[in-house]
Amino acid sequence: MGTMQPSDMILVSVDDHLVEPPGLFDGRLPTRFRDRAPKVARTPDGSDVWEFNGTVIPNIGLNAVAGRPKEEYGVEPTAFDEMRPGCFDVHERVKDMNAAGVLGSMCFPSFPGFSGRLFAACDDKELALAVLRAYNDWHIEEWCGAYPGRFIPMALPVLWDPQLAADEVRRVAAMGCHSVTFTESPHNLGFASFHNPAWDPFWAALCDEGVVLSVHLGSSGSLAVTSPDAPVDVMITLQPMNITSAAADLLWSRVIKEFPSLRIALSEGGTGWIPYFLERLDHTYDTHRSWTGQDFGDQRPSDVFRQHFLTCFIEDPVGVQLRDRIGIDNIAWECDYPHSDTTWPEPAEALLREAAGVPDDELSKIAWENACRWYSFDPFAHRARERCTVGALRSEATGRDVAVRSFDHGRFERKVGLEIGNLQPTS
Amino acid sequence: MGTMQPSDMILVSVDDHLVEPPGLFDGRLPTRFRDRAPKVARTPDGSDVWEFNGTVIPNIGLNAVAGRPKEEYGVEPTAFDEMRPGCFDVHERVKDMNAAGVLGSMCFPSFPGFSGRLFAACDDKELALAVLRAYNDWHIEEWCGAYPGRFIPMALPVLWDPQLAADEVRRVAAMGCHSVTFTESPHNLGFASFHNPAWDPFWAALCDEGVVLSVHLGSSGSLAVTSPDAPVDVMITLQPMNITSAAADLLWSRVIKEFPSLRIALSEGGTGWIPYFLERLDHTYDTHRSWTGQDFGDQRPSDVFRQHFLTCFIEDPVGVQLRDRIGIDNIAWECDYPHSDTTWPEPAEALLREAAGVPDDELSKIAWENACRWYSFDPFAHRARERCTVGALRSEATGRDVAVRSFDHGRFERKVGLEIGNLQPTS
Repeated sequence: MGTMQPSDMILVSVDDHLVEPPGLFDGRLPTRFRDRAPKVARTPDGSDVWEFNGTVIPNIGLNAVAGRPKEEYGVEPTAFDEMRPGCFDVHERVKDMNAAGVLGSMCFPSFPGFSGRLFAACDDKELALAVLRAYNDWHIEEWCGAYPGRFIPMALPVLWDPQLAADEVRRVAAMGCHSVTFTESPHNLGFASFHNPAWDPFWAALCDEGVVLSVHLGSSGSLAVTSPDAPVDVMITLQPMNITSAAADLLWSRVIKEFPSLRIALSEGGTGWIPYFLERLDHTYDTHRSWTGQDFGDQRPSDVFRQHFLTCFIEDPVGVQLRDRIGIDNIAWECDYPHSDTTWPEPAEALLREAAGVPDDELSKIAWENACRWYSFDPFAHRARERCTVGALRSEATGRDVAVRSFDHGRFERKVGLEIGNLQPTS
Repeated sequence: MGTMQPSDMILVSVDDHLVEPPGLFDGRLPTRFRDRAPKVARTPDGSDVWEFNGTVIPNIGLNAVAGRPKEEYGVEPTAFDEMRPGCFDVHERVKDMNAAGVLGSMCFPSFPGFSGRLFAACDDKELALAVLRAYNDWHIEEWCGAYPGRFIPMALPVLWDPQLAADEVRRVAAMGCHSVTFTESPHNLGFASFHNPAWDPFWAALCDEGVVLSVHLGSSGSLAVTSPDAPVDVMITLQPMNITSAAADLLWSRVIKEFPSLRIALSEGGTGWIPYFLERLDHTYDTHRSWTGQDFGDQRPSDVFRQHFLTCFIEDPVGVQLRDRIGIDNIAWECDYPHSDTTWPEPAEALLREAAGVPDDELSKIAWENACRWYSFDPFAHRARERCTVGALRSEATGRDVAVRSFDHGRFERKVGLEIGNLQPTS
C-alpha cells in the first residue's frame, strides 16, 4: 500500500511548455540571416505576436493559462504581460516549479508548433536550419542550462530532411540532449511518412545516441472535426485521440523491427486508452497476421509496445487502475504547466489523490524514475537527493505567491485547434 | 462470484450480419420498379455480385468467413457457394444459432452497407425508397418472421430525407421493429450532420416509437488511413475507433438534450475504451464548460452517456474488468456471426472465459437482459424460458456439423475497407 506523503515525493514532468521570450534569437544567427530571424512585434490592439518568414503567430501563449480561474480558459493570453512570467522566464519558471515541488521538467515549444513545423514551412531551407539550430542552442544552453538538473533538454527536428535531422540529433546529443520532439504524422505535414525508408538515417541517429522521439498530442496537422457545425466540445474530447494513430502507425511499421532500440514517448497522450489499444493490437495480430504478414517472432504486439513506448498522464484514474495492463515501467507523469490541464500549483496532492492505494515503489516509477531512465536525466548529479523532494523544494520557495488570479483581457479564442490554426499565413 | 455454466446461459447477440439472398426483392416492388430491383449476377470468373442502379457490389459476403480457418481470413468469399449457408439462409442460420446456443440475434445488412447508403446514393429517390422499404419488409417479415422470438428486427434508414426517415421509423415500429441502423457520420456521407435540426422529425419518431439508433462501427464513410504506404494492420487496429467520434458527436449535441428519451447503440464498438472516454467527457466538461456553454444541469456527461448509449463487445477483457466504470446496464454482448471476429461456434465458452469472476446477475445483464430491455425484445413470449438456454438450444441441434473447414478460392481482398470500397461504382 502507498504510504507516501506529498512532501516525500519526487516529481519529474515529461511534458510542460514554454513560451518563447523576445530576444531568443539575439546573437544566435549568422549575420546574413539576422534581419530574418523570428521576432516579437506588438500589434495596434496591444497583442504580442511572433513573426517569421511572412507568417504571423498571434497566439504566442497558446493556452498558457496557469494561474487563471477556469472561467477564463477560453481566453488566450495575447501579450506577455497577460501571462504568468513563469511561462517565458526560466528564473520565474524555476520559482514556480519550486513552489509546486516539481524537480524536473521537459518543455515543449510554443510558437514554432510542437514539432517545429513553422520552420519546416520556410522555403529558404538554409534560413530554416539556421533558425532551428539557434532555437535548439537557446533551449539547451539558456533555458535548460540556467538550472542544471532541473530541465530535460529537448530539440526540434529537421522535418524536411532526414539526413539533416540525423545530423541535428547527433549535434544536440553531444550537448547532452536526449529528446527530440516530433509530429504524430509527417505524412499529414507533407513529408515522407513513418513508413518511408528515407527516415532511416534519423532512426539510426536516435538509436545510436539514445535520443527519445517525443511525439506530442496535437502535432498531426489534422483536427478531429466531425462536422463544421459540431460543438467545440466534440473536438476537445477527440483531439487527443489522434495520438492513437501515431502509436499504431509506428507499432506496425518496419521501423520498430529494423531499429530495435528506438524509443518513442506519447507526450500528453494519456494512459487510460492504452489497455484497450494493446488488446486490439494483439487481437489484430492473432486474427490477421497470417495474411497481413506481420511477424514479431516470439513476441506479441503488446510486448513490443512496452519495449518502445513511454506513456504519460496528467490525471487519469483509469490509467492508474490499469497500470499493470499498461506496464508499470512505461508510465510517466506530466504537469503540463502552464496549460489549462495542469495540476500546478499542487501536483503532488493531485497525483496522490488518484494514486491512492498504489504501492510506493510503483508511484515512484510513475512520478520520476521512468522519466529519468527514458531521458537519461540524472538530477541527483546536480542536487543532493534529499533536496529534490516536494517538501524540500517548497521550503526553498516559502512565501512565493501561487494564487490564482484573474486577468483583464479582450479577445476570445477557441483554445483547441490553435496549434493548427497558428500556422496559417495571414492574408 | 460467478457460478454460471455455459449450458445455463442465455445469449442474445446485438450484432450479427446477414448476407442478402438472391430473390430478396421478388414480389416486393411496385411493377414499374421491378426491372430495376437490386439483383444477383454471376460474373465470368464465377463470382456472385449484387447489382443496383449501375453499381456492382462484388463482395456480397463481406468478411463472411464463419467456419473457415484463420489462415483464410484475408480472402473474401465471392460466391454464395463459398459461404456457410447460415450466412444467407435463415433456416440454416437458426440451426447455426442452435448449435452454438444463441437464442437471439440482430442482423445488420451487407450489400446495402451498414446504414443502407447504397440506396441513399441512388438518384431516383422514388426507386430508392421503394427498394429500402422492400428490404425492410423482407427483413422483418421473412428473415425475422420465419422464427419469432429468435431475431431482433432492424430496419434501414432513409438517409436522404429526415421526414421520410421518420415515416419509415413509424412504419416499421408498427411491424414490431425497434431498431434502425444508422451511420457514424451522416455529414461524411453528404447529408445533414447530427447537429442539423433537419433531423428533428427523425429523432422525434425514434423517441415516440421506442426505436434504438444502432450505429455500427465502420459506417462513417471514412477510413482511418494514416498514410498510403502504411501496413494494413494500422487500419485494422484503428478502424473501430471511428465510432468514438460518433459517440462524442452525439453526446455533446443538442439532440441528446432536446430528445431526452433517444437511445443509441454503438454496435460492434467494443467497451474497453469507454471508461477513458467517459473520463475525458467529464474532464472536458469540468474544465471547459464555462466558456463552451455546455450545460447538463445536475448531471455530468458520463451520467448522460449511460442514459443514452448501449455498448457491446465480442471479446474485451478490459471492458469486462472495468464494467463498473462503464455501467453494468449499458453493456451487451454480440456474436458477430459470420464475421472473422466471431466467437461462434462456442460463444458461451468464450464469454465465460473472459467473464470469470463476474457475478451471475451481472453476467446475465451482459449476455441478454440489457439487449432485451433496450430493443423491446421478448423471446420468452415465443418460447418457454427453459428452452432458451445454451444447453437447451444445443440439445435441439445435436449432431449438427459446426466444424471449421477450408474453402478453395482464388481472390485476395483486404477485408478492412471493403465496407467503404464496396460502394465505388465500377468504371
